[in-house]
Amino acid sequence: MKKVKLIVAYDGTNYCGWQVQPNGVTVAEKLNEALTALLGEEIYVTGASRTDAGVHSLGNVCTFETNSRMPAEKISFALNTYLPPDIAVQDSCEVPMSFHPRFSKSWKTYEYRILNCTFPNPCRRLDTLFYHYPLDVERMNRAAGYLVGEHDFKSFASIHTQSETTVRTVSDCTVTKEEKSANAGVGIDGMPNAGKESDAGKEEGLITIRIRGNGFLYNMVRIIAGTLIEVGSGRREPEEMLQILAAADRSAAGPTAPAHGLTMMGIEYE
Amino acid sequence: MKKVKLIVAYDGTNYCGWQVQPNGVTVAEKLNEALTALLGEEIYVTGASRTDAGVHSLGNVCTFETNSRMPAEKISFALNTYLPPDIAVQDSCEVPMSFHPRFSKSWKTYEYRILNCTFPNPCRRLDTLFYHYPLDVERMNRAAGYLVGEHDFKSFASIHTQSETTVRTVSDCTVTKEEKSANAGVGIDGMPNAGKESDAGKEEGLITIRIRGNGFLYNMVRIIAGTLIEVGSGRREPEEMLQILAAADRSAAGPTAPAHGLTMMGIEYE
Repeated sequence: MKKVKLIVAYDGTNYCGWQVQPNGVTVAEKLNEALTALLGEEIYVTGASRTDAGVHSLGNVCTFETNSRMPAEKISFALNTYLPPDIAVQDSCEVPMSFHPRFSKSWKTYEYRILNCTFPNPCRRLDTLFYHYPLDVERMNRAAGYLVGEHDFKSFASIHTQSETTVRTVSDCTVTKEEKSANAGVGIDGMPNAGKESDAGKEEGLITIRIRGNGFLYNMVRIIAGTLIEVGSGRREPEEMLQILAAADRSAAGPTAPAHGLTMMGIEYE
Repeated sequence: MKKVKLIVAYDGTNYCGWQVQPNGVTVAEKLNEALTALLGEEIYVTGASRTDAGVHSLGNVCTFETNSRMPAEKISFALNTYLPPDIAVQDSCEVPMSFHPRFSKSWKTYEYRILNCTFPNPCRRLDTLFYHYPLDVERMNRAAGYLVGEHDFKSFASIHTQSETTVRTVSDCTVTKEEKSANAGVGIDGMPNAGKESDAGKEEGLITIRIRGNGFLYNMVRIIAGTLIEVGSGRREPEEMLQILAAADRSAAGPTAPAHGLTMMGIEYE
């Protein structure tokens, strides 16, 4: 018996999230089926980040136990031939039996992406939030800075959160803008949206909220994104983040931003 | 009666290309339906680039004639509410009745994108070609340079091409690599694919072939991409591009690369 760790990328558009559930197809279910077919024994994966429906991943982690004699590092290549094209394992390796993808200490990184343009880009509709009112990235980044450190993030957690404590440490939280990558073009006729001044005089582009922490409460990144959008649009001041944290009350923060803008980027274990 | 020009972006995954045809749903058909519903008269668009099934666009151009009194520049916003989420108009304006999107002189820009990684990225499976053998971008870029200028591109045209002449001018053709954007990550646990040395010692990443010309023959960009991939993988020398051009024979060039890696980026009219 050995324990194998997988790094799993997926387009979450067509899944009811990570975790197996009775009402729809999930990423974990597809992995269980593929591993069971590949290894010839019933396999159940344990995931690190149980992402919601529509959330994407470039680096989620899961483990499973197996009696197979296939070398752990060969499993990634073989497994991908059993998986649908919207799920692809990026790496496989053996880990100690004591390793647990969720309970072993780690730092997780997420990105929330906002396409801040006058018109939507159909090629990015599945992995970015289209938001057409101008957003001030400098204000958003200033607000994000207040979240860095050890805080009680209760205001930024769904009321359905089941964690014992709502204290978490965020090591980094930045908001940046890629100006022309929104529509990937240069200032030519077909690219009216790229690097162009919109009505309100704001540059258009792809805004990325990148956050790294030692744990995240249920919906925490999406509530942070929803709140930062309110700061960027001028409805809140960056300094209000301090009061929102202090309130320890979900109603103090902004709305939960839609799932499809969120991507699980990767997990570093200590 | 006036003539209106639209700039149209689309994810071509679910369409049988641009041009209306009996066997499947096309982008032009969706635009005709939406415009007819919006303006209350039968509308037929004329496209600049009649892209194939699976090819994407950020800046294709089409025109139509209308008696509607709706100001041309208002049409883009209204029309998007009638279009499916994988098609989005980026701009609309009135043009002279003499303007023709295909016959008026123009420069078109296309990008062909190759994800050159050990493992596929599910989030980019629809708009990049996944290619896991190492590609030498410097060699590809050198080969691309031979295409710049006025040449007979007959070797790079489908035998089904219907053009009177196969002479075209390519003003720019470059091959570049974005090293970490393949999986958009940094060198953390979840990002084994990003900026990592693969088995053959090549850096992984997103390779973009960008080409601008005054006209393109049928399948020309995809045949150029297929040939440059052969150069990048070492099966051909960059200098062979001269012989391929001189041959004026389709069989001298490489294979036609798959449609889904190709994006129509934009059109500049003179």
